[in-house]
Amino acid sequence: MSMELIAIKWENGKLEILDQILLPVISKYVAVKGVEDGWKVINKMQVRGAPAIAIVGCLSLAVEIQNEEFTDKKSLRQEIEGKLNYLVSARPTAVNMKIAAEDLITLSNQLKKDDSVSAADMKEKFLKAIDAMLEKDITDNIAIGHHGAQAILNNGAGDGPVRVLTHCNTGSLATAGYGTALGVIRTLHSNKKLEQVYCTETRPYNQGARLTAYELVHEKMPAILICDDMVAALMRSRTISAVIVGADRVVANGDTANKIGTYQIAVVAKHHGVPFYVAAPLTSVDFTIPSGDRIVIEERPEREMTHINDQRVAAAGIQCWNPAFDVTPAHLITGIITEKGVYRPDELNKLNILQIQEDDRL
Amino acid sequence: MSMELIAIKWENGKLEILDQILLPVISKYVAVKGVEDGWKVINKMQVRGAPAIAIVGCLSLAVEIQNEEFTDKKSLRQEIEGKLNYLVSARPTAVNMKIAAEDLITLSNQLKKDDSVSAADMKEKFLKAIDAMLEKDITDNIAIGHHGAQAILNNGAGDGPVRVLTHCNTGSLATAGYGTALGVIRTLHSNKKLEQVYCTETRPYNQGARLTAYELVHEKMPAILICDDMVAALMRSRTISAVIVGADRVVANGDTANKIGTYQIAVVAKHHGVPFYVAAPLTSVDFTIPSGDRIVIEERPEREMTHINDQRVAAAGIQCWNPAFDVTPAHLITGIITEKGVYRPDELNKLNILQIQEDDRL
Repeated sequence: MSMELIAIKWENGKLEILDQILLPVISKYVAVKGVEDGWKVINKMQVRGAPAIAIVGCLSLAVEIQNEEFTDKKSLRQEIEGKLNYLVSARPTAVNMKIAAEDLITLSNQLKKDDSVSAADMKEKFLKAIDAMLEKDITDNIAIGHHGAQAILNNGAGDGPVRVLTHCNTGSLATAGYGTALGVIRTLHSNKKLEQVYCTETRPYNQGARLTAYELVHEKMPAILICDDMVAALMRSRTISAVIVGADRVVANGDTANKIGTYQIAVVAKHHGVPFYVAAPLTSVDFTIPSGDRIVIEERPEREMTHINDQRVAAAGIQCWNPAFDVTPAHLITGIITEKGVYRPDELNKLNILQIQEDDRL
Repeated sequence: MSMELIAIKWENGKLEILDQILLPVISKYVAVKGVEDGWKVINKMQVRGAPAIAIVGCLSLAVEIQNEEFTDKKSLRQEIEGKLNYLVSARPTAVNMKIAAEDLITLSNQLKKDDSVSAADMKEKFLKAIDAMLEKDITDNIAIGHHGAQAILNNGAGDGPVRVLTHCNTGSLATAGYGTALGVIRTLHSNKKLEQVYCTETRPYNQGARLTAYELVHEKMPAILICDDMVAALMRSRTISAVIVGADRVVANGDTANKIGTYQIAVVAKHHGVPFYVAAPLTSVDFTIPSGDRIVIEERPEREMTHINDQRVAAAGIQCWNPAFDVTPAHLITGIITEKGVYRPDELNKLNILQIQEDDRL
């Protein structure tokens, strides 16, 4: 744990984030001195990953509020609502920031109505709630790591050590800390059960080659980078114990939307009899969507594929198809690793997940 | 056909090749004025693709010999043997150059022994044999294109038009002209049966994004580039009529070694019920190797993955796995498209291929 990469530094009321645009070439922290800075680092993608965006946004509000004095609760409530809505506008598609904003606005309304709470108390309770969000994200990820590592070892890998494969970046850089899929791998490593982790480049944005590889090197895990077209060759030449990926969204029947390339790895894993796990907090499960074919896939600019920084890498004039995500059908998923345990996709809708989510909200 | 990209210009005894290192950014022809130049363009990979290497090597010898006068056959034979062996040393792993050299040395031995042949005749017959090699490669590729297009249309695609996917570069840039897998796609296009061709980037050397995309744009085919991790998503979202790839080597049981990533596409095609074809001349079939697990896979430098030109794209310190090829097992292959027709992998060993190959040699 001491080796873990700190992407979000929150100490003594000061917030700094590791600038992900400059990675892996330069490791530089950027100070976030308030909501204005918070909006900028989210909008410019200096911080990315849905959980990390929400945490940085809320912490940037905490930075600002902690140094102000409020004599009336109404002005505090107004400031909270206005600034949270502003933060949501930095990346409108990042649903976690929106949910966090809704939760915090609900809390501030409750505190305002409660006559036993003074303005100073309200400010303190509000700041504590933001701290608790940060804390909960990390705690949930550690629980995901624990459950996931157990499930992989129990599913035929015995006492290990295991060889696992992951895709995209789901580590300290994408979350408040520890990570989801990469958190599972971190737990395996801490428990001396990790023989080798393979990570894919994750074209076209290279999150694997740039960010996951950076985290794995930083933590001295036994890691090997492969290209996205080498997964099947890898599974044929070496025994892989499990694939572990994250999720942008899991829907009611267990279908899972995640970074482009995830579905292909699931197909290849099935062909080779390799267990395929999705690691995600229960907040990523959306029970209002019945199945994956209802998920709309964002298509991103061609330039992401044709250029690396300012250098052209593809022939001029070629058209590109650049979907940001794909949907892995539930039948290809061995288990969904959550902070409450590991579930088969078809077990998800037996759980009273909506109630669990409600209980966990502020 | 008039639109076809000319990678090897051989006119009036002058040889020029399109410099593939500079593609796709710069299209520049390099003059090859003799064997020394031939060795250099092969060694520096300004020309690549096994058939193209053999043709350029032999033509560079023709350039030199055509302007020399020989009074005795012995000195001609000695020059031929010495210079061909030198050309083979430019890329020792390129087996086609070695086979071509053996064939031409055998021919020069026969001509030397034949007392009815003068020194001038011997030179003329030898130069004609090199011209015939160039001619045969193109003729074979056109036959491959014809048989392949027929097979794809007959295999459920009806009257077309079809949507096909290819991997790596197997076009005019890799052969004497026309191409193997890309030749099939070219024929479909000429016959107005091509609705869309998708090509993969083909990491880590990007032959798809750089070279295949360049050829497709040049010939105004309806082409779309995808990343290597998007193949499964593509097959799920659009109906693909067939995958067509080339081969570095097909062995006796039909197992096929080709550019890394080919095997993965075959697995994904099988999962989606998409026919998977290998296009290769019969000279690529090696009956001395019984099955694919006997093929040794070359591993290439990590730098190919960590850098694009001189720019680092992966985290410093990460280890890489970079196999150049993989082996697609015969059971994933719908058909092997050759100049003599299309065969199921298990039909290959029913053919008297060794005899066919012998008949076709000089």
